[in-house]
Amino acid sequence: MGSVDHEYPLEMNEAESVPQQKHHVEVPTPQPFLKYLKFSLKETFFPDDPLRQFKNKPPSKKFMLAIQYFFPIFQWAPKYTFHFFKADLIAGITIASLAIPQGISYAKLANLPPILGLYSSFIPPLIYAMMGSSRDLAVGTVAVGSLLMGSMLSDEVNPNEDPTLYLHLAFTATLFAGIFQAALGFFRLGLIVDFLSHATIVGFMGGAATVVCLQQLKSILGLVHFTHGADIISVMRSVFTQIHQWRWESSVLGFVFLFFLLITRYFSKKQPRFFWVSAMAPLTSVILGSLLVYFTHAEKHGVEVIGELKKGLNPPSVTKLVFVSPYITTAVKTGIVVGIISLAEGIAVGRSFAMYKNYNTDGNKEMIAIGTMNIIGSFTSCYITTGPFSRSAVNYNAGCKTAASNIIMSIAVMLTLLFLTPLFHYTPLVVLSAIIVSAMLGLIDYQAAIHLWKIDKFDFVVCMSAYIGVVFGSVEIGLVIAVAISVLRVLLFIARPRTFVLGNIPNSGIYRNVEQYPNAKHVPGILILDIDAPIYFANASYLRERITRWIDEEENRIKATGETSLQYVIMNMSGVGNIDTSGISMLEEVKKITERRELQLVLVNPGSEVMKKLNKSKFQNHLGERWIYLTVEEAVGACNFNLRTRTNLKKDESEGWNNV
Amino acid sequence: MGSVDHEYPLEMNEAESVPQQKHHVEVPTPQPFLKYLKFSLKETFFPDDPLRQFKNKPPSKKFMLAIQYFFPIFQWAPKYTFHFFKADLIAGITIASLAIPQGISYAKLANLPPILGLYSSFIPPLIYAMMGSSRDLAVGTVAVGSLLMGSMLSDEVNPNEDPTLYLHLAFTATLFAGIFQAALGFFRLGLIVDFLSHATIVGFMGGAATVVCLQQLKSILGLVHFTHGADIISVMRSVFTQIHQWRWESSVLGFVFLFFLLITRYFSKKQPRFFWVSAMAPLTSVILGSLLVYFTHAEKHGVEVIGELKKGLNPPSVTKLVFVSPYITTAVKTGIVVGIISLAEGIAVGRSFAMYKNYNTDGNKEMIAIGTMNIIGSFTSCYITTGPFSRSAVNYNAGCKTAASNIIMSIAVMLTLLFLTPLFHYTPLVVLSAIIVSAMLGLIDYQAAIHLWKIDKFDFVVCMSAYIGVVFGSVEIGLVIAVAISVLRVLLFIARPRTFVLGNIPNSGIYRNVEQYPNAKHVPGILILDIDAPIYFANASYLRERITRWIDEEENRIKATGETSLQYVIMNMSGVGNIDTSGISMLEEVKKITERRELQLVLVNPGSEVMKKLNKSKFQNHLGERWIYLTVEEAVGACNFNLRTRTNLKKDESEGWNNV
Repeated sequence: MGSVDHEYPLEMNEAESVPQQKHHVEVPTPQPFLKYLKFSLKETFFPDDPLRQFKNKPPSKKFMLAIQYFFPIFQWAPKYTFHFFKADLIAGITIASLAIPQGISYAKLANLPPILGLYSSFIPPLIYAMMGSSRDLAVGTVAVGSLLMGSMLSDEVNPNEDPTLYLHLAFTATLFAGIFQAALGFFRLGLIVDFLSHATIVGFMGGAATVVCLQQLKSILGLVHFTHGADIISVMRSVFTQIHQWRWESSVLGFVFLFFLLITRYFSKKQPRFFWVSAMAPLTSVILGSLLVYFTHAEKHGVEVIGELKKGLNPPSVTKLVFVSPYITTAVKTGIVVGIISLAEGIAVGRSFAMYKNYNTDGNKEMIAIGTMNIIGSFTSCYITTGPFSRSAVNYNAGCKTAASNIIMSIAVMLTLLFLTPLFHYTPLVVLSAIIVSAMLGLIDYQAAIHLWKIDKFDFVVCMSAYIGVVFGSVEIGLVIAVAISVLRVLLFIARPRTFVLGNIPNSGIYRNVEQYPNAKHVPGILILDIDAPIYFANASYLRERITRWIDEEENRIKATGETSLQYVIMNMSGVGNIDTSGISMLEEVKKITERRELQLVLVNPGSEVMKKLNKSKFQNHLGERWIYLTVEEAVGACNFNLRTRTNLKKDESEGWNNV
Repeated sequence: MGSVDHEYPLEMNEAESVPQQKHHVEVPTPQPFLKYLKFSLKETFFPDDPLRQFKNKPPSKKFMLAIQYFFPIFQWAPKYTFHFFKADLIAGITIASLAIPQGISYAKLANLPPILGLYSSFIPPLIYAMMGSSRDLAVGTVAVGSLLMGSMLSDEVNPNEDPTLYLHLAFTATLFAGIFQAALGFFRLGLIVDFLSHATIVGFMGGAATVVCLQQLKSILGLVHFTHGADIISVMRSVFTQIHQWRWESSVLGFVFLFFLLITRYFSKKQPRFFWVSAMAPLTSVILGSLLVYFTHAEKHGVEVIGELKKGLNPPSVTKLVFVSPYITTAVKTGIVVGIISLAEGIAVGRSFAMYKNYNTDGNKEMIAIGTMNIIGSFTSCYITTGPFSRSAVNYNAGCKTAASNIIMSIAVMLTLLFLTPLFHYTPLVVLSAIIVSAMLGLIDYQAAIHLWKIDKFDFVVCMSAYIGVVFGSVEIGLVIAVAISVLRVLLFIARPRTFVLGNIPNSGIYRNVEQYPNAKHVPGILILDIDAPIYFANASYLRERITRWIDEEENRIKATGETSLQYVIMNMSGVGNIDTSGISMLEEVKKITERRELQLVLVNPGSEVMKKLNKSKFQNHLGERWIYLTVEEAVGACNFNLRTRTNLKKDESEGWNNV
């Protein structure tokens, strides 16, 4: 381009009638199909290129690296120091004090015996400590996963009528969740989790938390009969038709503990040094509540207690898995849904904390770790586990250094199982409810929803659909609606891409959207369009219609103002990432349309994929290679040169061009 | 920019240490939410702006325009001339001669009485002539629609055991197809049809044609018992288990007529003036075949004939519609599937011919016209109709001028119904089969499949899946597979967008993909990335990973070569059409990652939607407005200026910038 006069496109200065130097638009060198396929598959499934580190290493080193890859504990354990141990010990004890009451509470949410919550806080953290790549994730049961599993399994088997079958079904569902999670990681299909957008998760989690809180009305009000439905309407009906059964003793206890938990949380939030105040609050509540019941004999006045908890470690449950129809279908379905939701939570939490501490977690590796811990969990009387946000945050704040804090927690839970279970006999259920409610209130992230509304209305709609779907329908309905709307949005983006008219930014060779840059000027006789999406079957007809309308509107505008008549339609293809055969037909049609109106179609900067296909389909030859330019500036320069040649010298257009 | 030295970014020339004049990236003026919503909805559903012509017109004119809008006949009828009539008369008679034998044949495909094919070629063309916007579409029954309806309805009701119920179900399905089609047009949901890509349709049509040809083996081989399955395996089993029932009389007759039909078609293709030769061939075959049977009494030697055809016009069928469960579900399902397939065919055919003749058809208007003709058809003993390609091509070649040719055809069919039906008594079924096979062979567009393979392997996969699905599974399975794969492709494009490294094209200020332009040069100390897709939840994690990997790779490369260390990461956002909240979080994370590595993130040319959201989410302030540039050239210029200031003057980066 050398020294170019950028005002050139706008002025008809004869002295400068040399067209701009043209840069050639390259057609990428054709690659063998298989090589291309391999490259595409690699980009799709191995974007992080996990085998990079294995290159050019001796086999023994490769084996060591592979072991370290699947078991990161072999990476960090040799470098483990006493300084680390001190930090992990404190963090581990802190999260154990949270895990024990939460474990018992969440097991109730899944309609499972409370002891399962403790079992699930013993084995899975050990597995994760060996295989996980996050240093901050505190593994255990989660409220949403428990609720989801409870609601889906109860549809098939009534947990009160056949608790044994229900329990076995829960193990089986956990097994399938684990298999599904590990398979996703192994087959590098983590992209399925990507389809749960942040907005979906905010709405879904908020909805689930609301539903969980509503469920707690049962024990807070001391009701004996309660609906099996999780939606707000069933719960409200259940609560208000039994006003005379409400027990004030239960309610008072519930609200006192809830207040205590919330006030400690508020305090810890204000004073992060005192994170342990809120971390210890649930265990303190359990102890205080148990003592209160023990001394006042409140269990005889409508305050339900946990009762007998079996001493001892996890019994094996391999033989209890149910693989017979029709239960297996329910188990597989529940496993997949619960698995994907837990995975999304675990991975997001792990990633967030890795972000703070400047290290990386590997999504696919995490899936394998979480999957494996659930598979082994299902063999050892555990139900679904993942890394809940609240507990991981406490772990992080307590200063954990490695996944060893999970091992410490696991040991603490083991000791509890071996020696301390009798102490929970008098723990009132209403305290557990208070613990659940206080944890859940933190999940209703209304500020995130406001943020979504401000930035992206569509994301807000997705979020609210998930919330409303969960609260008024069911957890599954909310999830399906939110994912469907999110996918619809992606499809709509492709089906209805935005097209813009570009104008020249004064005193430059820059061409930009005239809506965004009001000072950008139309170039007389030339319509410059910008397409910002791949041209696919889904938008080919739309784009044809829309381009035709742009031309119509431009011609009408010109007719009204009496400007130079339209001669060129330049299509800037910079933003067109790909094109399919329908897209090429569309271009052929647009070419016909422009020819019919005696306009010349000009393409600018098709990318490598597009150029390859334009070349193969002969559209490139058909249009004429000289009508494909590298920049809008050069295209406008050449069009202007032709316009002038035609206007001033009355010469044939093609002749003028042959001289260039 | 004035006169800019474009070699500047590559050379460290101290004399030129003034950074390039910076153009500001505009944030579009915020619009009220409702206005924006209205605009988006309009672009989504009314891309062709159909109400444009109604603007600023008096009410009487508006009414007239509305009538003309829904009934284009009022537009062209007043200008109708005798010259047009002559042309339409010839075209109408030609297509009638094709419509009568085809109508009878296709009705057999749908397991319906042959007379229904004639009924369906009488009323629907009249409706279409009034409402349709295509001048070339010849309306009538189609092979694929008939086959699809036959196969879907037979799953519910056996046409041999309960022909009356089956017939009524066919009318009901036609009604629902019509309602669905008209509703799509009325609610401007034509974009659903867009999701049937060209590749899907090629594969699907080819598969359906193959299946239809296979079905004809029954009458060509003179078999009495035949499978109800449409897939190739059932048919082949049916054919080869009955080798001893094959009738040579039937086969000879079939192959002779098939040869005759194919030879006339080949001749007409070579000599387009003699289009009428192939157009008349089916009727000629019917006449010759009937005479042959009449004189040789071949019906007594295994050659099945049509038999009695009732004289008279369409009887009403409103009262025969079935709205009771379980049949209504089948009728609705069949109606939707058959309706959308017929619609796709009719619209594509209408549009292709409009293209040749330089006029426009209106997709949504066409949907309403086709829908209405099916609704009225279902009240008057017709089954599903649309505009088949073969017949419309004949219409076009015969020189039709307006939709009046449909009226002529309709009158010809009416006369046939009134007076000529007894003549079809001796028409052998095998001749009808030969007519179907010869029409179907034209639908197996293997050349299109080869074209797809050459240009776009993925489209080829879609096409073959549809074909194989239809031939080995069923028509519905093929359709579902093909649509699913097409949608998956769109989702994959979004989930795994391509990112490129840009380099400087020597002696210019142009930056392009270094893979496509091997002469493009890396700029020392600066990594320029290009993203070509909207940044959505579905690709946010992928992009974060991929960008991190680009930075890793660049740093490793620099370490190996000992170049200037990396200081800036420029992200060209020109191709990013939109961003959602997950995308913004991704940018925040990338910013943190770059900061952690002491790199400066620079954005280039965010579009209006993106800029709006960057502004609202405060990312713009967070990054610093001075790190957002309008062009890559300006961004590189500024970075280079800083690099030099740092290197030569050892000055603080920000200080250097404050002077700009």
